[in-house]
Amino acid sequence: MYEDRYLEEYELGEKRSTIGRTITETDIVVHAGHTGDFFPHHMDEEFSKGEAFGQRIAHGTMTFAIGIGLTATAINSKAFTYGYERLRFPTPVFIGDTIHTEIEITRMSDDPKRPKFGQVVESCWVKNQKDETVLFCEHILLVQKQGNE
Amino acid sequence: MYEDRYLEEYELGEKRSTIGRTITETDIVVHAGHTGDFFPHHMDEEFSKGEAFGQRIAHGTMTFAIGIGLTATAINSKAFTYGYERLRFPTPVFIGDTIHTEIEITRMSDDPKRPKFGQVVESCWVKNQKDETVLFCEHILLVQKQGNE
Amino acid sequence: MYEDRYLEEYELGEKRSTIGRTITETDIVVHAGHTGDFFPHHMDEEFSKGEAFGQRIAHGTMTFAIGIGLTATAINSKAFTYGYERLRFPTPVFIGDTIHTEIEITRMSDDPKRPKFGQVVESCWVKNQKDETVLFCEHILLVQKQGNE
Amino acid sequence: MYEDRYLEEYELGEKRSTIGRTITETDIVVHAGHTGDFFPHHMDEEFSKGEAFGQRIAHGTMTFAIGIGLTATAINSKAFTYGYERLRFPTPVFIGDTIHTEIEITRMSDDPKRPKFGQVVESCWVKNQKDETVLFCEHILLVQKQGNE
Amino acid sequence: MYEDRYLEEYELGEKRSTIGRTITETDIVVHAGHTGDFFPHHMDEEFSKGEAFGQRIAHGTMTFAIGIGLTATAINSKAFTYGYERLRFPTPVFIGDTIHTEIEITRMSDDPKRPKFGQVVESCWVKNQKDETVLFCEHILLVQKQGNE
Amino acid sequence: MYEDRYLEEYELGEKRSTIGRTITETDIVVHAGHTGDFFPHHMDEEFSKGEAFGQRIAHGTMTFAIGIGLTATAINSKAFTYGYERLRFPTPVFIGDTIHTEIEITRMSDDPKRPKFGQVVESCWVKNQKDETVLFCEHILLVQKQGNE
Repeated sequence: MYEDRYLEEYELGEKRSTIGRTITETDIVVHAGHTGDFFPHHMDEEFSKGEAFGQRIAHGTMTFAIGIGLTATAINSKAFTYGYERLRFPTPVFIGDTIHTEIEITRMSDDPKRPKFGQVVESCWVKNQKDETVLFCEHILLVQKQGNE
Repeated sequence: MYEDRYLEEYELGEKRSTIGRTITETDIVVHAGHTGDFFPHHMDEEFSKGEAFGQRIAHGTMTFAIGIGLTATAINSKAFTYGYERLRFPTPVFIGDTIHTEIEITRMSDDPKRPKFGQVVESCWVKNQKDETVLFCEHILLVQKQGNE
Repeated sequence: MYEDRYLEEYELGEKRSTIGRTITETDIVVHAGHTGDFFPHHMDEEFSKGEAFGQRIAHGTMTFAIGIGLTATAINSKAFTYGYERLRFPTPVFIGDTIHTEIEITRMSDDPKRPKFGQVVESCWVKNQKDETVLFCEHILLVQKQGNE
Repeated sequence: MYEDRYLEEYELGEKRSTIGRTITETDIVVHAGHTGDFFPHHMDEEFSKGEAFGQRIAHGTMTFAIGIGLTATAINSKAFTYGYERLRFPTPVFIGDTIHTEIEITRMSDDPKRPKFGQVVESCWVKNQKDETVLFCEHILLVQKQGNE
Repeated sequence: MYEDRYLEEYELGEKRSTIGRTITETDIVVHAGHTGDFFPHHMDEEFSKGEAFGQRIAHGTMTFAIGIGLTATAINSKAFTYGYERLRFPTPVFIGDTIHTEIEITRMSDDPKRPKFGQVVESCWVKNQKDETVLFCEHILLVQKQGNE
Repeated sequence: MYEDRYLEEYELGEKRSTIGRTITETDIVVHAGHTGDFFPHHMDEEFSKGEAFGQRIAHGTMTFAIGIGLTATAINSKAFTYGYERLRFPTPVFIGDTIHTEIEITRMSDDPKRPKFGQVVESCWVKNQKDETVLFCEHILLVQKQGNE
């Protein structure tokens, strides 16, 4: 799983896609218990019948955590997470949906404060089985330049 | 827990603070299992001894999910999450740290596409027991204006 | 979530009601694993088909733990749990039932051994989506009297 | 694990004792997530330092659920739970405590409404490694009389 | 649950059978999270529709862990696990299957290196509700001979 | 994560090694709850003090499930698990140990009943941070030969 890559080895427009995962009722119950968010939109089937989607929906924080978790397949010791931008949830995730994440490098730039690093922006589209985007976000990585050990 | 508030009832500069929660080894193991991210930075004590922080650190997605989960204490049927911006992780969370979240309304604006709603930005500082910020982010809410049922 | 109240601020007949929560198969599996009670009434669908209710039923200890957990919304530093009385389970909880808890203060009295405290009895009815009581119990609180810091 | 016993086979004064189990930080985190009770007495080490016991304490509902769970070793198809009485928590359970449950049949009586059954009261003392009682309760069983199939 | 038995008290051909347990979607999600194996055969309903069995299947390691776990009902301080042989998975376990384990002592022999012990082989057949074997294995125990304290 | 390989692409003597993972108290509590095996050797710190190892030890089934789970990094649609042989547990796993798995292809052979497949035996050594083997086993794969779609 170790795959060291320096900034120079990343390329704008580079794409990858993850395996899929079905979001289960278990995941929602576990996420509520993990975060303490037991809002009825996620946990109360009767309440949800009267809401816009007619059923329980996944927590946004869970779609994010699992959607990003799916991308964690290769460990690059030259890179680390700087932050995330523009999280949006265009479509809800329902119990039984199967999601995967598509990633594209959409921006690369110098980092003004860290001359030995550059910023790599991975745009992430978490999609369901109907190819609808359930989460969009930008994952900003700081990646070391070559020759800076 | 139900507390309906319209846009007009939010106020710029309004602040609130959550209860605290100690982040345990259990939380990290649960989060790895929930998301599938078993990177050694979170899960391998021996590996982590040789890294910058000398110990396992929490997943950023967990700090976010729990930090935001702590704020989920009142259900406002007039508001929903539009997205999150500017997630930053200035300090890592270690096993045994106790975190809480401080919230301040730092921006309010019309929503160009939805005349019946306005945007409310809650800036969130998740802080540890030393008052260090471990996560900053902006939570963007869409809140209904009065008289628009 | 902090809401300090002295004995004098409680009132006989006072009522409140919690949000609801759908009891899932996950909850039963988690409760079995948490308590070690894997009796087939809770865990074996084939066995349960031949029993009185024709399906798996929730553990009584789970209905109690979740039913009481639903009431934990405000932290009163002047009160603590003395005990519980009269736990009864008039109707079983099935997978997919949605429960909530209704609370009424049904008794208040001095505590013979603790002159600075009084007893407040919260009667709790945990009810399902058909308004059937699935658990009744009395939660006995010891609450500090004013002027006794 | 099946061990059918009719009312006539129970005896006043009969005693048994369970195996032990160490209560871990994991158990408390799991119980909070299972019940939704994240009160700082259980979950916030910093807060707990300033409280009476100086550390996090187990939820009463957990001590009950695990203490009773430990007794679930033999399935008697002739008996079922009628209810519980007199739950008391004389000593808190701390992380690292090892508990077991001691049971004694302390009352047997007819059931006025169910002539084919009798009531058997199992008094339960959940004890820690110092032999202190952390939970007392009475478990009331309804047990079928012989010759009433 | 304590039931001490020396080697001389085991008998070739001795049989026992466990209680049953329904394997739920929760179990599969928990096992993936516990082991880190999120292969789509277990976790992705869409992917599984196109595979040989048309649905998600349980991890072999889970069928083994739960199938053996079901046998853990009596603690014999004179015996311990030496190993397992011949694990085979003739039929997959699907969500909703109910399994139990049948055990027969199929071999007993001296242990060449440990004169105070003998080997007892428990053949285990984990079976589903259709009486199909989903796992076969041999559990090899080392059991102390009498008079060797 | 998809990496199709036919039988002809496997090589005797081929080796790989996984990332590491620290086994926590949480893992043991989760495994007990997952399998129903609450034997005091795993769950009772007081009992374990008086046993050979002086502390709680991991379940053998957990060492196996996690040790094998660590190897699940590449999905080969041409291979599937036939079974496991010779599971041995030369050293116990304690809370806090960090394990990883080393794999070597130690046997390859035709499968007498399936002419389109061959058997590949991956010998697995799960090792702790002291390089002691905590589990040995042989994982038998059936791998498709080229030209047999």
